[in-house]
Amino acid sequence: MKTTLRQLGERGLIALLKRQLPRGRDVRIGIGDDCAAVQIGRGAGDRLLLLKTDAVVEGVHFDQRATPFQIGWKAMARPLSDFAAMAGRPRWALVTATLREEMPVRFVREVYRGLAAAAGKFGVTIVGGETVRTPDRFWLSVALAGEVEPQAMKLRSAARPNDAIYVTGALGGSIAGKHLKFTPRIAEAQWLAKQGCVGAMIDISDGLARDLGHICRESGISAVVWKSAVPIALAAGRSLQRALHDGEDFELLFTVPSERSKKLERAWRKKFPRLRLSLLGFTTCGEGIRLLDHRGRMRPLDEDGYDHFQPRHA
Amino acid sequence: MKTTLRQLGERGLIALLKRQLPRGRDVRIGIGDDCAAVQIGRGAGDRLLLLKTDAVVEGVHFDQRATPFQIGWKAMARPLSDFAAMAGRPRWALVTATLREEMPVRFVREVYRGLAAAAGKFGVTIVGGETVRTPDRFWLSVALAGEVEPQAMKLRSAARPNDAIYVTGALGGSIAGKHLKFTPRIAEAQWLAKQGCVGAMIDISDGLARDLGHICRESGISAVVWKSAVPIALAAGRSLQRALHDGEDFELLFTVPSERSKKLERAWRKKFPRLRLSLLGFTTCGEGIRLLDHRGRMRPLDEDGYDHFQPRHA
Repeated sequence: MKTTLRQLGERGLIALLKRQLPRGRDVRIGIGDDCAAVQIGRGAGDRLLLLKTDAVVEGVHFDQRATPFQIGWKAMARPLSDFAAMAGRPRWALVTATLREEMPVRFVREVYRGLAAAAGKFGVTIVGGETVRTPDRFWLSVALAGEVEPQAMKLRSAARPNDAIYVTGALGGSIAGKHLKFTPRIAEAQWLAKQGCVGAMIDISDGLARDLGHICRESGISAVVWKSAVPIALAAGRSLQRALHDGEDFELLFTVPSERSKKLERAWRKKFPRLRLSLLGFTTCGEGIRLLDHRGRMRPLDEDGYDHFQPRHA
Repeated sequence: MKTTLRQLGERGLIALLKRQLPRGRDVRIGIGDDCAAVQIGRGAGDRLLLLKTDAVVEGVHFDQRATPFQIGWKAMARPLSDFAAMAGRPRWALVTATLREEMPVRFVREVYRGLAAAAGKFGVTIVGGETVRTPDRFWLSVALAGEVEPQAMKLRSAARPNDAIYVTGALGGSIAGKHLKFTPRIAEAQWLAKQGCVGAMIDISDGLARDLGHICRESGISAVVWKSAVPIALAAGRSLQRALHDGEDFELLFTVPSERSKKLERAWRKKFPRLRLSLLGFTTCGEGIRLLDHRGRMRPLDEDGYDHFQPRHA
């Protein structure tokens, strides 16, 4: 019997492709991190080229309630957030748009105004792309290219045991609106990289639990998260579950060696007084993530949103 | 009344976006040529970064008759052909695949085997991308990044009056099979760029008439094509119309100053004895393309395939 993609699952497919596809010698970071990083030329002052592609699809990443400007903004902001995760400097974008012929020109102009606004805010120029006619769903796919200095680049795999775990902003409930107008944390990430103390970093797209899970797996460590320390967004009601699992927060999640954490917090508050920085917990040896409550009880946190002890919120 | 995309047309849309989108200072070639070319770093030995994205869609660029390997090959070979047009050196690819859940894993593996085969043949590594589940059509979008030396880069706008016009291979009838297994002319283009005599260059994707039209418009010249000199592929029957308009030939079309043409032809035959090089005609002042028959009569050639004097073949 033939195995289908449904049976294999997305992780299975990525693992398969990772094994199947050859890896070049000039590739520093290939399939699996937020962006790919490759070595461009020898005279390039050691900088790496970062590459990322990301798509938004009608009915999946946005619906009728989104304005065309917001759709464009989101399509550009998502891969920008991946650049933030690696502390990269985004520079050029190619936009592939699949458009239906009956779309008003005005709608398409607004979409591109949203794309250009998000690009312009972070110094990115749209240098090309493609428009494709379709009878199907409306799609935007953005390919981003940019740079990073190798010593500034942040990876998912650089956390060590006994690091402090931090997150910016507040989490959960993004679907209520934030997912259409969030600000990629490019400036914050570049500032963090300059502090010289950040270990692993990732942007939260799949939800805190899953993205912290990525850091744990790729760094070969485990994490303990204080339940009461998780910053819950207003839009998430008071649901810790939503803050842990909703996703599309596009905040930065990163680790810092414990002894450097106080100093970093002080500097952060001075530099970004209006953006909350929460100390979530710490890393340790082993595997997986545990939630720690105020009575000192720990329980495992399922990455996919299933809480072993509590009924799951919708 | 609202104008729709159907009313505006594709050229109208591109012109509109070109006006609407801001152009960065580090952008050498933006929207409108085969690839975008941008300035990366100052220490990069003056090389330019080339960027290109291109998609193939089920039912548009391939159908049931194509094998999954061929679909992957074509998806990678198309943007590679754009790199050839600019005499660029492709290096890294990101692949976005929209896949249906009921697809057999084996099919998807074969698609990626085709992608990797075309990439590997030209020294390109697939460094990332994205898989998106869809209930709609199967799609592959490839974003390519690579390099070119500024003095080697070939543009559509560099033809001058009294250049000789050349085309590689034979044209027309690609739909019979060639479009699924063509070889991008990367090696030939890089060799041509080294000869130091090529003016404008483009790859034939829209058909000889249209792509020569691009060169004419962007160079501000006109072209005269000898009817009997157009190399007609076997698959096109004996139809000149098909050779002029079918498209997806992925051959190189380029110009050379007349006084350099004899020497170039000799060198070509020595270097690529198995690939035909045809002298098609010459450039001149003015606008548009004219077809010249053996009795010395000229008539205008409509880029879109409408022949003003003959009924059009299907």
